[in-house]
Amino acid sequence: MKVLVNNTIESRENVAIDIEDRGYQFGDGVYEVVRVYEGEVYELDGHVERFFRSAQEIDITLSYTVNELKENIKALIAENNVVDGGIYFQVTRGVSPRKHSYDRTLASHLIAYPLYFTRPKEKQLSGVTAITVDDLRWLRCDIKSLNLLYNVMMKQKAQDNKAFEGIFVRDDVITEGTSTNVFIVKDGVYKTHPASNMILNGITRQRILSLLSENNFTVEEVKFTKAELLAADEVFITSTTSEVMPIIEIDNQIIGQGQVGDKTKQIYNLLINYIG
Amino acid sequence: MKVLVNNTIESRENVAIDIEDRGYQFGDGVYEVVRVYEGEVYELDGHVERFFRSAQEIDITLSYTVNELKENIKALIAENNVVDGGIYFQVTRGVSPRKHSYDRTLASHLIAYPLYFTRPKEKQLSGVTAITVDDLRWLRCDIKSLNLLYNVMMKQKAQDNKAFEGIFVRDDVITEGTSTNVFIVKDGVYKTHPASNMILNGITRQRILSLLSENNFTVEEVKFTKAELLAADEVFITSTTSEVMPIIEIDNQIIGQGQVGDKTKQIYNLLINYIG
Repeated sequence: MKVLVNNTIESRENVAIDIEDRGYQFGDGVYEVVRVYEGEVYELDGHVERFFRSAQEIDITLSYTVNELKENIKALIAENNVVDGGIYFQVTRGVSPRKHSYDRTLASHLIAYPLYFTRPKEKQLSGVTAITVDDLRWLRCDIKSLNLLYNVMMKQKAQDNKAFEGIFVRDDVITEGTSTNVFIVKDGVYKTHPASNMILNGITRQRILSLLSENNFTVEEVKFTKAELLAADEVFITSTTSEVMPIIEIDNQIIGQGQVGDKTKQIYNLLINYIG
Repeated sequence: MKVLVNNTIESRENVAIDIEDRGYQFGDGVYEVVRVYEGEVYELDGHVERFFRSAQEIDITLSYTVNELKENIKALIAENNVVDGGIYFQVTRGVSPRKHSYDRTLASHLIAYPLYFTRPKEKQLSGVTAITVDDLRWLRCDIKSLNLLYNVMMKQKAQDNKAFEGIFVRDDVITEGTSTNVFIVKDGVYKTHPASNMILNGITRQRILSLLSENNFTVEEVKFTKAELLAADEVFITSTTSEVMPIIEIDNQIIGQGQVGDKTKQIYNLLINYIG
């Protein structure tokens, strides 16, 4: 496997992280996962722009331009012959003797490497289950940071409960999933939490909002409660890897008819057609 | 420099972290900093026991006992001839292909290495300044996890404002500092936030509570507001590295008489005597 390290592509066996990398000691960094379909990178602009925005929010300076990073990611895809899967990339503030505060001249450290996976089509067609979990995360969920421990804990709790996803509830409001955004459909209207500091504004979420609007569906970026979630006609979650994933049961309660609903199928088809 | 890697002491140049270590990608781990004075490790029991408790809270299984880890840390201090400073140690869930959920059979990965520093006596005698900052952290601050990004951001904000520490305020209540606990003194009574999910229950904090009680001072573990902080007679912060650090100015407002107060000096002396 080939790995992008800052501006250079290297063999994985030659790539190692220092014990004093601030990513290792503080989770002091940000990341993205971008999808590759049939060898072609998908929504690269959106992911790279968000990556730069996340880095800026935590005051990390990158040593390459948006275009240079995009070209490096494309080169990495070619070097690894990625056909179906994606590229994971993260940057940390760099290596320095451990202390909380940092030196702005520190050289940030980027790594990127391929992930191999395929569309989870069987699950998309049958639907999956979820549980609700308390949203105890920090209040800057808009930053795609490496501080993912609580997401890890709640994804594991979902898995331990034989569920596909954990859906966060904060002050009775549904924010998002541990690695997905959440949509409900009620009386023909699609709803999802507004983009704010409470959620990570998914690239797939944004694409779906555009596709729904362009196709004259009614969509609202509004808060909704756990009771509204459980009483929804349909529920689905979205992400780069899951695309549109129907949720047919939450906390052991059947959602709607307990099967993939028409509105979910419609946006699923719109997205799959858009991906091409 | 020698580094403890799980149960083995190795040369630093031979120690490297895998890019798929979950500590690097998720901050999926916990840590401690233990103090060494004149070659002797201080409060090792408290730190190692809290380390095991933090690991347990996030479902990481350690491959050594409390006593084995204590012996390994003592051996590491001897190998490095640490006289004044400390040992940083952290454990991550281990190395695995990136996904949020985890396999409970994964081998956790510990590293430990020496830090060299001395008592910040000049600052302790003159006092330092602080700023208040919003506490936007997750609601499991009782776990000493590697998810320290927000602490980093707020410590840096303090430094950018020429202050020594950032003091967290959540819902108008003072919780703690970015890497310290906060005490106030008002009308002869010492006060600090109760141990709960809102703070990291510092080993130094616990020692100070004991010393105050044993010496018949009045101490209360109670919540206090930002207004109470600013109107306190004295304020000090505590940590393994800062011990007792007087705060004489917060948000550009003088605290008490604007100098190190008598009650702060008394507990400082008690602690320094206890350390021996």
